[in-house]
Amino acid sequence: MSASALFDRLLDDDRWSSSVIRDLLIHARRPDVISLAGGLPAQEVIPRERCMVAADRILTERGAVALQYGVSAGESELRELLVRSSEPEPDRIVVTAGSQQALDLVARLVGGSTGTGPLVAAIEDPGYLGAIQVLRSHRYELAGIPVDADGLVVDVLAERIAAGLRPRLCYVNPTFQNPTGATLSAERAHQLVELAEANDFWIVADDPYAELGLEGHPPPGLPRSANVIRLGSTSKVVAPGLRIGWIDADPRIADRVVLVKQTADLHTSTFNQLVVAEILGDEIWWERHLDALRARYLVRRTHLADALAQRLPGLAVTTQSGGFFLWGELANPVPDLVSNALQRGVAVVPGSAFAVESSSPNTMRLSYSAGAPEHFDEAVRRLAEAIAAG
Amino acid sequence: MSASALFDRLLDDDRWSSSVIRDLLIHARRPDVISLAGGLPAQEVIPRERCMVAADRILTERGAVALQYGVSAGESELRELLVRSSEPEPDRIVVTAGSQQALDLVARLVGGSTGTGPLVAAIEDPGYLGAIQVLRSHRYELAGIPVDADGLVVDVLAERIAAGLRPRLCYVNPTFQNPTGATLSAERAHQLVELAEANDFWIVADDPYAELGLEGHPPPGLPRSANVIRLGSTSKVVAPGLRIGWIDADPRIADRVVLVKQTADLHTSTFNQLVVAEILGDEIWWERHLDALRARYLVRRTHLADALAQRLPGLAVTTQSGGFFLWGELANPVPDLVSNALQRGVAVVPGSAFAVESSSPNTMRLSYSAGAPEHFDEAVRRLAEAIAAG
Repeated sequence: MSASALFDRLLDDDRWSSSVIRDLLIHARRPDVISLAGGLPAQEVIPRERCMVAADRILTERGAVALQYGVSAGESELRELLVRSSEPEPDRIVVTAGSQQALDLVARLVGGSTGTGPLVAAIEDPGYLGAIQVLRSHRYELAGIPVDADGLVVDVLAERIAAGLRPRLCYVNPTFQNPTGATLSAERAHQLVELAEANDFWIVADDPYAELGLEGHPPPGLPRSANVIRLGSTSKVVAPGLRIGWIDADPRIADRVVLVKQTADLHTSTFNQLVVAEILGDEIWWERHLDALRARYLVRRTHLADALAQRLPGLAVTTQSGGFFLWGELANPVPDLVSNALQRGVAVVPGSAFAVESSSPNTMRLSYSAGAPEHFDEAVRRLAEAIAAG
Repeated sequence: MSASALFDRLLDDDRWSSSVIRDLLIHARRPDVISLAGGLPAQEVIPRERCMVAADRILTERGAVALQYGVSAGESELRELLVRSSEPEPDRIVVTAGSQQALDLVARLVGGSTGTGPLVAAIEDPGYLGAIQVLRSHRYELAGIPVDADGLVVDVLAERIAAGLRPRLCYVNPTFQNPTGATLSAERAHQLVELAEANDFWIVADDPYAELGLEGHPPPGLPRSANVIRLGSTSKVVAPGLRIGWIDADPRIADRVVLVKQTADLHTSTFNQLVVAEILGDEIWWERHLDALRARYLVRRTHLADALAQRLPGLAVTTQSGGFFLWGELANPVPDLVSNALQRGVAVVPGSAFAVESSSPNTMRLSYSAGAPEHFDEAVRRLAEAIAAG
C-alpha cells in the first residue's frame, strides 16, 4: 500500500517521457527494415583496430593508473588536445560523457543561476531531441526559433526578445544541425553572438558534426565570445561507445562545471580518456582517419540524395555539405506515413519528433550515416511506395 | 560588462562548492606526504592484466559494435551479471557511471516527484561526502542521523519522524560506511525498512564496500522491500577508472531511471560495460581475485590498526571487519591538527568534513586502502607527533 503511494508520486512526474525515436528505433532493428532513422556513425568507420592498439599501449605503459580514479576536469593530456584555439588554454576544457552530458551539466548550472522571470531556453525548431529532453527535464520553458538553410533564423529570436522573451540560454547545433543538416552562416553566427552579449544570455553551441564537412570548406562555427559555451564530442569521429565529449568555455565557467561534474559522476572514465588522447595525438593517423571517414560519408550522402531525386521528386530534399542528415518535406500530408513506411520495411523519423513550438508537418529526417549505401535505392523505393499509398 | 553580469549570476549559486577532501588531496599528493586521506583502491589490486585481456577479447570478438552507441539501461549481459537475487531480474538493473551517478539519477528522480512539505533527505551523520554534495545540489535539506557501531541509529530517525520530519529518502551506506566503517546490523536494517514502509520514504542503500568483508562473515545488507533502491559499484573491486556502477530497484523505478539516464548521458560506455561483464563472468578468476583483494586489505587494515594501538593509545579507534576506513576520535580537541599533520608529512581527513548536522569534533577518517603498509608505522609516528605538538 505505502509502496504504491510512493510509486505513484514518482511516476507522476511527467518530465521523464520516452523518446519517439527510441520507440521507433526498436522497430527499425527488425532485420527486414532498412533504417534511415538512426543517427549512429557507420560501423566500418569506427577505428576498432586503432582503439585496440591504444588500449593495449595505455594499459602496458601507464599500468593501473589508467584504471584508477581521476580528476573531475579530465585527464590533462586529453584536455590539451581538445583545445581548438591557437593559444593552449586547457583550463577551458572539462571532459564529459559525450556532449549529451556536457549539455546536462551546463543546463543544471545555468538553470540554478539567479535570474528574473521564467527559466527559458531558446532552441532551434525543429531541434535536437536530446537537447529538448534534457532542457525540459531541468524545467526550462522552450522557445522554438525557426531554422532555414543558413541555420537558426536569428532575426526571429531578436524579434521575440524585443517582444519580451528573456532566454537564459540559446542552444544551437551550429554545424550540420540535427535534424535539418543546416549550418549557421558566419553572418548569422556574428548576429547571434551580438544578440547574446546585448541581452545577457549564454549560447550553448553543441557541435558534434564540426569535423564532418564533406566538401572541403570548413564550416564557420561561432566567433569567440565569453557568452559562448562550446560542447564537443568524439562520438561521431572516434567511437560513441567510449562516451568522450567536452565543454569548452571561459575558465571561470569551466571551473564551475567541474564541480557539477564532480557531483554528477566524479569524472569520466580515465581509461577511455587516455585511449582517445592516444588516438587524437597520433596526428598523421588522425588526419588520414578523418579523410577516410569524410570520403565514406560523402559516398553515402550522394547516393541517398541521388536516389531521392530520382525516385521521389515529390519530396523536397535539403542536401547539406556535411553531417549525417538530409531533411525532406512533402507538399501535402500523408497520414500514418511513418508506420506505413515501417510496414514496407523502411524507417525514417518524422519531423514532428523534433518539433518545439512548430508542428513541422510533412517533414522527415533521412539519415545516411549508418545504412549500407547499396540499400539506399531499395529504401527510397519503399518510402516512395508508402507515400504513394498514403 | 554584460558577460560579467552573466558570470556573476552563475557564480552566485552556492550549491557548487568544492570539497574539503578535494583540496586536501592536492596537498596529500606531495611526495613527502604519506596519505591516509584518500579512498582509492590499492593500485596493485586493480586487475590491469585481466582488463587488457578482456579489452582485447571484446574488441576482437565483438568488433565495432563494442564501440557503438548502446541502450540507456545498459548492456544486457552485464545487467544479468549484476542481479544479486536468486531469481534473475535484469529489469531491476540500470548501469551507471559509478554509484555516484546512480545516486545523482535517483536524487533527481525522487527530488522531482510530487510530495508535500520541504524536500528532505535523511543521511548518516557523519556521512559520505559525495552523497551530501549531490543531495544538496538537488536542493534537498539534509537531516543528519547519528551512526554508531551498528550503523545508522534508526531509533533517532524514528524519533525525528515522530516529531514531524518527513524524509523523501534516507541515504545509507549499509556496509563498512564511509567514513566510519560501521555496518548496519541486521536488526537495524529490518527496523529501517519497516520505518520506510510505514512512512513512505525510499531507502537509497549505496553499497560499494559490500564485497569487502575481510573476516569471512558476509555483511547482512538490507532485506528486500519495494522501498529499497540499491546502488552498487565495481570501483572498489574492479577498477574505478572504468566508471561502472548500477541501480538495483523495482522494475517500475528502474524503468524511470532509464529515462533520466537517457537525458543525463545517453548511456554508459558500451566498451567498459563489456569489459566488466567479461571479468565478472569469469567466475573462477573472479572469486580468486576477490579473495586476493580481501587478503591484501586485511594485511593493511591490521597493520594500520596495530600501529595506531601501539603509538597512539590516546586515539580511540573503531576497527571494522571490512571496507577501507578506520575511524579515530581524540578525547580533546587539537587545534589545526590536519594542517600540522600535513606539515609533518601525513594526511588524514578531519571528521568535520563528513558532518551534516553534528560537528564530529576531534574525529578523523584513516584510510588503509591505498597506502603502502610498510609506511603505516611512520605515518602514525608523524600523526602522534602532530597531536602531541597541538
